[in-house]
Amino acid sequence: MIAVEEARDRILTALRPTPAETVSLPEAWGRVLAKPIMARLTQPPAAVSAMDGYAVRAAEAVEGARLAVIGSAPAGHPFEGRLGPGQAVRIFTGGFVPEGADGILLQEDAEEQRGFVTAKETVKPGRWVRRAGLDFTAGEELLPAGRKLSARDIGLAAAANHPWLTVHRRPRIGILATGDEIALPGEAIPAGGIVSSNAHALAALVRAAGGEPLVLPIAPDDRDAIAAAAAAAPACDMLVTTGGASVGEHDLVQAALGPQGFALDFWKIAMRPGKPLIWGRLGTTPVLGLPGNPVSAMVCAVQFLVPAIGVLSGLPPAPPPTVLVRAGAPIPANDRRFDHLRASLATDRDGRLVATPFPVQDSSMMATLARADALILRPPHAPALPEGAEVEAIPLAQIGV
Amino acid sequence: MIAVEEARDRILTALRPTPAETVSLPEAWGRVLAKPIMARLTQPPAAVSAMDGYAVRAAEAVEGARLAVIGSAPAGHPFEGRLGPGQAVRIFTGGFVPEGADGILLQEDAEEQRGFVTAKETVKPGRWVRRAGLDFTAGEELLPAGRKLSARDIGLAAAANHPWLTVHRRPRIGILATGDEIALPGEAIPAGGIVSSNAHALAALVRAAGGEPLVLPIAPDDRDAIAAAAAAAPACDMLVTTGGASVGEHDLVQAALGPQGFALDFWKIAMRPGKPLIWGRLGTTPVLGLPGNPVSAMVCAVQFLVPAIGVLSGLPPAPPPTVLVRAGAPIPANDRRFDHLRASLATDRDGRLVATPFPVQDSSMMATLARADALILRPPHAPALPEGAEVEAIPLAQIGV
Repeated sequence: MIAVEEARDRILTALRPTPAETVSLPEAWGRVLAKPIMARLTQPPAAVSAMDGYAVRAAEAVEGARLAVIGSAPAGHPFEGRLGPGQAVRIFTGGFVPEGADGILLQEDAEEQRGFVTAKETVKPGRWVRRAGLDFTAGEELLPAGRKLSARDIGLAAAANHPWLTVHRRPRIGILATGDEIALPGEAIPAGGIVSSNAHALAALVRAAGGEPLVLPIAPDDRDAIAAAAAAAPACDMLVTTGGASVGEHDLVQAALGPQGFALDFWKIAMRPGKPLIWGRLGTTPVLGLPGNPVSAMVCAVQFLVPAIGVLSGLPPAPPPTVLVRAGAPIPANDRRFDHLRASLATDRDGRLVATPFPVQDSSMMATLARADALILRPPHAPALPEGAEVEAIPLAQIGV
Repeated sequence: MIAVEEARDRILTALRPTPAETVSLPEAWGRVLAKPIMARLTQPPAAVSAMDGYAVRAAEAVEGARLAVIGSAPAGHPFEGRLGPGQAVRIFTGGFVPEGADGILLQEDAEEQRGFVTAKETVKPGRWVRRAGLDFTAGEELLPAGRKLSARDIGLAAAANHPWLTVHRRPRIGILATGDEIALPGEAIPAGGIVSSNAHALAALVRAAGGEPLVLPIAPDDRDAIAAAAAAAPACDMLVTTGGASVGEHDLVQAALGPQGFALDFWKIAMRPGKPLIWGRLGTTPVLGLPGNPVSAMVCAVQFLVPAIGVLSGLPPAPPPTVLVRAGAPIPANDRRFDHLRASLATDRDGRLVATPFPVQDSSMMATLARADALILRPPHAPALPEGAEVEAIPLAQIGV
């Protein structure tokens, strides 16, 4: 059995980002840049007013001064002339500051009457003027490759005049659920069977992580059926199987994929829930074999598949995000397996997050997993902790999982 | 000018969730339930084994006992008979525990030879048996209405046998950018003009918040053009305008929409950036008028539009999510306007989040906003704080904004 961190390192090191594609600006939200975004223009292109008021020569615009209003400069309509002595130009936020002006008399500090404006406050040179290039300058790198684009980034790319962006293709993740006992929701359930939940929970997790799921038909516990389903592997950036990963006689994934050229890297991890996990390669396609137990499958997917999709999408390798929280109950000492306690999250009186583990942590309980807001991380041999101790947790709902 | 909290309350109180629609299970991730999900079956349907091993009568299966193996019970293939004295059934994780058995002899504690199994450990009654209904029972409410569906919830809904779910329709948010000076990325920029960034930044924010954006053609600063564009309002669950909201002569949205039957609720908020903000109704469509300044528009959208889309989507009314962080630099006292300091986030040696405000907070700087990981919230008249003090912040990247 290998450690969680080592397993994740081996998985992430084996992966390469998908090739780039060109998408239109509105499609690029949440995607990862394959090329940096450089400014195609300077913003603002010239000095502009930060406020509504009057563009003036600051040296003249002392309290009580009276200036002739010779024109106006709304945003988008620059004043064509030049400001001479004793003159002012009506200006609006974003309007270009006319040549000759070097300060803004604020509207609320001005009184305009019959073509003249009187200053009620003295203007400071440069005040309320935004210099050309204050935001960015043509040629400047605004956003680096490897960045996941936020809504603000989309706005910045637009402002820098990019209608198209070069991003990594969403990784396509094939999902193969195996098992004689499982049926899709709404279909006839075989005697002794259950409804399959792994495939669609994983498909949603793949979407949450930025991938594109390809849900393959369920394969019965039969070598030929599993081998046939695996024919989809070349079309995928990664193939994820569930079920058949443990040591029983009915655990067939390894046996079925072996003759297809499956090269195993490792298959047991010192973690709970989720010990049996297969990692290898079928041809050029990486294969991640998750446990059949739905809770184990999801916990393993959070620890390994979410970061894997990150790397395939072009993000730097990283573990799933964690937060520091307080334990809402005493936590017993841990054994040699890295544990993941399903916990609810609440905010205490001081606004701090408190994670309280559910009393029963049985790995078959999907309803408990759904109710959990977080997984408290318990490294191997972690000592017992009192209520209120600080612990690290993965905030599941925050990552859409 | 009204306070941020009051403005948000007035906005959220005026909104109603969109009607329900039926979607297939895979489409439901990230949507909000309009009806609770009830369990359509009991899970597990009967007592099942939690491990691979042998189903036995615990009273007999003491260390050294030798039992006849009379059959097997893999998951999905129940053993048809009944376990008699001196008998055992080979069983696998998820297999139904045969009638007569009440404990599981673990595989690693057993030795099987020529049809007989020898116990190397004594079995405890009930050990490694999961009772029927341990996870959930038919008829039980599993997920309440108003819940945003996580990947785990999708798995639970599948396990409870739901191929279809009833969720709120994604709210459609019309986005109308106004201004003579703006051009779409890649188009000819008018003299004195800039590239429009608001519409597509807001469209991405709408997606991040769970809505469906409808980007309307840019309207020039002209009453008739704005009034015509507003004809799209009835098709939208909310109309968002940007620009034209401040007090200058070129601020036309109110003037243009008035004759169309626009009913104003309020239009000035004590906040920075983003003082001018219009809230009202055009016919039955709520209208949110954001400032034209891109940074102000995004900050106002985070404070008001994200929560509004939440309520329209069926979520309970709530402010945007915040985290408690430490200030990475001293923070000056605030004036009477609620302030939003653009800040970078980092993790200190103890794993705690530290937010450091950027030295220049000019509201025209899109590049600074894009680089910001968080907005530090500074209520009106908040006192000066030393470096290291605890402050509340909105984690922008975490919410996809």
